[in-house]
Amino acid sequence: MSGYTVIGDWGTSNLRLFRVEEGRIVARRDGPGIGAVGRAAEAAFADTVAPWLADGTPLSITLCGMVGARDGWVEAPYADCPADAASWRAAAIGFDWRGAPIAIMAGLACTGADGIPDVMRGEETQIFGACARDPALAQGRRLIVLPGTHSKWALVQDGRVLAFRTVPTGELFALLRDRSTLGPKDAVGDAAQEAAGFAEGLARAGEGAVLAQLFAARAMRLRAGRSADWALGYLSGLLIGSEIAEARALLQADDGVTLIGDARLADRYARALAAQGLESQRLEGDACALAGLGYGGEMTL
Amino acid sequence: MSGYTVIGDWGTSNLRLFRVEEGRIVARRDGPGIGAVGRAAEAAFADTVAPWLADGTPLSITLCGMVGARDGWVEAPYADCPADAASWRAAAIGFDWRGAPIAIMAGLACTGADGIPDVMRGEETQIFGACARDPALAQGRRLIVLPGTHSKWALVQDGRVLAFRTVPTGELFALLRDRSTLGPKDAVGDAAQEAAGFAEGLARAGEGAVLAQLFAARAMRLRAGRSADWALGYLSGLLIGSEIAEARALLQADDGVTLIGDARLADRYARALAAQGLESQRLEGDACALAGLGYGGEMTL
Repeated sequence: MSGYTVIGDWGTSNLRLFRVEEGRIVARRDGPGIGAVGRAAEAAFADTVAPWLADGTPLSITLCGMVGARDGWVEAPYADCPADAASWRAAAIGFDWRGAPIAIMAGLACTGADGIPDVMRGEETQIFGACARDPALAQGRRLIVLPGTHSKWALVQDGRVLAFRTVPTGELFALLRDRSTLGPKDAVGDAAQEAAGFAEGLARAGEGAVLAQLFAARAMRLRAGRSADWALGYLSGLLIGSEIAEARALLQADDGVTLIGDARLADRYARALAAQGLESQRLEGDACALAGLGYGGEMTL
Repeated sequence: MSGYTVIGDWGTSNLRLFRVEEGRIVARRDGPGIGAVGRAAEAAFADTVAPWLADGTPLSITLCGMVGARDGWVEAPYADCPADAASWRAAAIGFDWRGAPIAIMAGLACTGADGIPDVMRGEETQIFGACARDPALAQGRRLIVLPGTHSKWALVQDGRVLAFRTVPTGELFALLRDRSTLGPKDAVGDAAQEAAGFAEGLARAGEGAVLAQLFAARAMRLRAGRSADWALGYLSGLLIGSEIAEARALLQADDGVTLIGDARLADRYARALAAQGLESQRLEGDACALAGLGYGGEMTL
């Protein structure tokens, strides 16, 4: 046996480890998120990787994500923007773990033109992975968007992250849906109604009054016969559309967009971008994360 | 005894009844909100008013607020905007209750210039009460704002409500403070820090990117040494400032503002309005509600 390496993405909710031999992923193991284990991270890692250690010490271990946060295993720094893949990799923190060299990748930090600072941990690995996989991203200017609980918008030029901004759209939507008086409690999953509400929300989003248009989710039901599913779609469209309009203005970017992430959410963002006249392409999140961790092989697992 | 009348404000959270004799309030009784009693509203009202009924049947009973909602006691209509006090009063629903004529006041409904409908129940009583108390509101054009869980912005001309808009700022702030990853869990009540955060939030609000500036509540703590109290103030200032900018643009109103409501909240709004160059005056909420219910006397209770 010629030995193996371990690469992994350890976020707040999940640990995903991949075993690589001769440039190919040969096994995968999942474990608890950093949010669940906190200071007990080392023990959780040891538990998850244990069956592989029985075959011998790995040649190297590379981890990205919240594992490097202050409340993670070992705090890794933030690389400052503008940052390219080389400066980001150089900021990783390395130490020896049971005889194997381990690297915990850095996050990214930036300060916006408006003086507001921002940070990410984990998404930068997908962004640099996307640049490694797609030559078009390593040349020219593009917005890379990772939609989610805390969406990340990164302005990338020639493979360097110039600036980025976090927009907590997914968290806000979940709060409004599950815990507010605006979120309908009686949605039945009517996809056509949801789509109609989503389109209406997108249309409203361009008007720059997101707070003053939230209440319509309720008022349109009371006064205009809209359904619960329509209201859910409306809230989603209004928030996503507003996020897009705000982030583009903030990053002063009229560039095309690359979406990375979950297919269903990327589809919603692609529709929202199209409603604002923006073309977008999509990349798969896992493939980008692995490429960012230095994996150049195929996605066999 | 020359008899007595009962006037009351019955909202989602509270029932407040006032007994009026010879043009003066002589007693007050409080009871449960409509949200707590729903279809059992009549029994709750009878319980609360019982000690007065022992003195004889009231000459009249007038109630405003959510008591007239679909899930209240008896559904009262919405008067359509533009609406003046006379057309609003005419839309009340009247019936006989144990020998006394009872009137449940109407709400107000409007459709914005953008086609979005809106409704209020209870706040219209304060608005028409304000117009009754303040001659300046019955002549000329003014914005009347009732800050709160669901802030109401009404554009009033010569005592007529032309249009209004609900902005759920208070609800959104409470969700962000209590249930989001942005709301600090370790605030200690440092008023100076809170005020500094509030001022920074107000300054950011004018930039029209409220969603993209929320995350700063967390990033400024991580990267710029701001405190938990600063972050709470920032969220409050960002939301209130954004509400003001959006509502003014939406109602196309550069007019002066009259604030009705809780003194502490009105003070925050007055500061936020001043930051956008708008003067404001304040009126006390209870006095306006009673005036809207036809009470012309002094506030002795």
